[in-house]
Amino acid sequence: MNLSGVKALTFDVFGTVVDWRGSIIADATAFGESKGVSVDWERFVDAWKTCYRPGMHRVNTGEVPWSTVYAIYRTKLEELLVEFGIADLTEAEKHHFNRAWERLDPWPDSVPALTRLKRKFILSTLSNGDFACLVNMAKHAGLPWDCIIVAENARRYKPDPSVYRLAIQLLGCRPEEVMMVAAHNYDLAHAASHGMRTAFLPRPTEYGARQTTDLRAEGDWDVIVDNLEELAQALGT
Amino acid sequence: MNLSGVKALTFDVFGTVVDWRGSIIADATAFGESKGVSVDWERFVDAWKTCYRPGMHRVNTGEVPWSTVYAIYRTKLEELLVEFGIADLTEAEKHHFNRAWERLDPWPDSVPALTRLKRKFILSTLSNGDFACLVNMAKHAGLPWDCIIVAENARRYKPDPSVYRLAIQLLGCRPEEVMMVAAHNYDLAHAASHGMRTAFLPRPTEYGARQTTDLRAEGDWDVIVDNLEELAQALGT
Repeated sequence: MNLSGVKALTFDVFGTVVDWRGSIIADATAFGESKGVSVDWERFVDAWKTCYRPGMHRVNTGEVPWSTVYAIYRTKLEELLVEFGIADLTEAEKHHFNRAWERLDPWPDSVPALTRLKRKFILSTLSNGDFACLVNMAKHAGLPWDCIIVAENARRYKPDPSVYRLAIQLLGCRPEEVMMVAAHNYDLAHAASHGMRTAFLPRPTEYGARQTTDLRAEGDWDVIVDNLEELAQALGT
Repeated sequence: MNLSGVKALTFDVFGTVVDWRGSIIADATAFGESKGVSVDWERFVDAWKTCYRPGMHRVNTGEVPWSTVYAIYRTKLEELLVEFGIADLTEAEKHHFNRAWERLDPWPDSVPALTRLKRKFILSTLSNGDFACLVNMAKHAGLPWDCIIVAENARRYKPDPSVYRLAIQLLGCRPEEVMMVAAHNYDLAHAASHGMRTAFLPRPTEYGARQTTDLRAEGDWDVIVDNLEELAQALGT
């Protein structure tokens, strides 16, 4: 595959660029200690995450109107606080807790690799996270995006076709000039179906030590590497 | 006015941050010299710009479907090439010429001031320019935006209310947490009508030496300064 025509890279972010699970467990653990609350935070965060895909699916099918990811997580948070016996949080505390999804730390290779790639390519997010979440996360984690494009711009979530098509259109590119970078095979399969180039890297501990999915490339992606530094190398930066 | 609650600054770009007229005249002059074409490029560029507001107005009234600014300029460019007797340009040359709108240089104070402001605030565009144009311009001019928000995201042009409202919503802010920065009084009047904070600075040569409009603040804007460095100072950065 000749990749010399690639002008822009669009990145999945949660899992691919940042370690959401490790970051939120650490954030929640610190919160719990400050409140004197003892909870199995790994179990809490894994339970919290379960609302994500069904919540987005209900938007994409039209079962519910557009809803931000923050709203989806907030609804689930209220349930979990009851279930785990965490009572008496103020509205400000719950808001702050829910905003853990923007206080995420990058994997060690992410910032150095993005900095290299930015010299040659337009770097955009193409995430299901809310626009404000991605902007605030970039400030927190020092992610040097050229622009933020998210599902919210299309008011549908990946893998709805409108999300990929809108990104290509906003970037003013032909599909083959845009490369989707992700640690999730499903995302690349959909990107490829719209004519985009694809790059896979595994994040084998995104879901913790017992992760069983996306441990390796499951498609004939244009680039398959072990991390983002290797992607920067493979793309000549 | 207490401005301590401001979290994000949204910038008009053409005229406010970059010198579009001077840049395009220089770009076109260099092109003319390379082609051995002698044209009054100031007159050419001023004539080119006349299509901008009517083209956007036709979109906002629904007279025509959504059209990018590049498409608006490209249609006018074809007319002007005939009118000014510039014949025989290839499609690639016309495409490149039309893309002058992304090869724009910042005013001298813009990059230093944005760099200072970025430490404390989220910096976004809020421009009528196309998304891709703003992304490519930022690469060309070194403008350190945190995110790109443009009229294209709302598929209506400023001053349509949907553009300001969408920006506030995407940034996850209340209106009073967002400050519109512009060298154009009309833009600030509309921003203020949606509850945004406002900052004015004049760009007295945006339209050339004989400019008669927007030479001074015409409203009770929250901040009135002479340039962006003064804005950085006024906002404590």
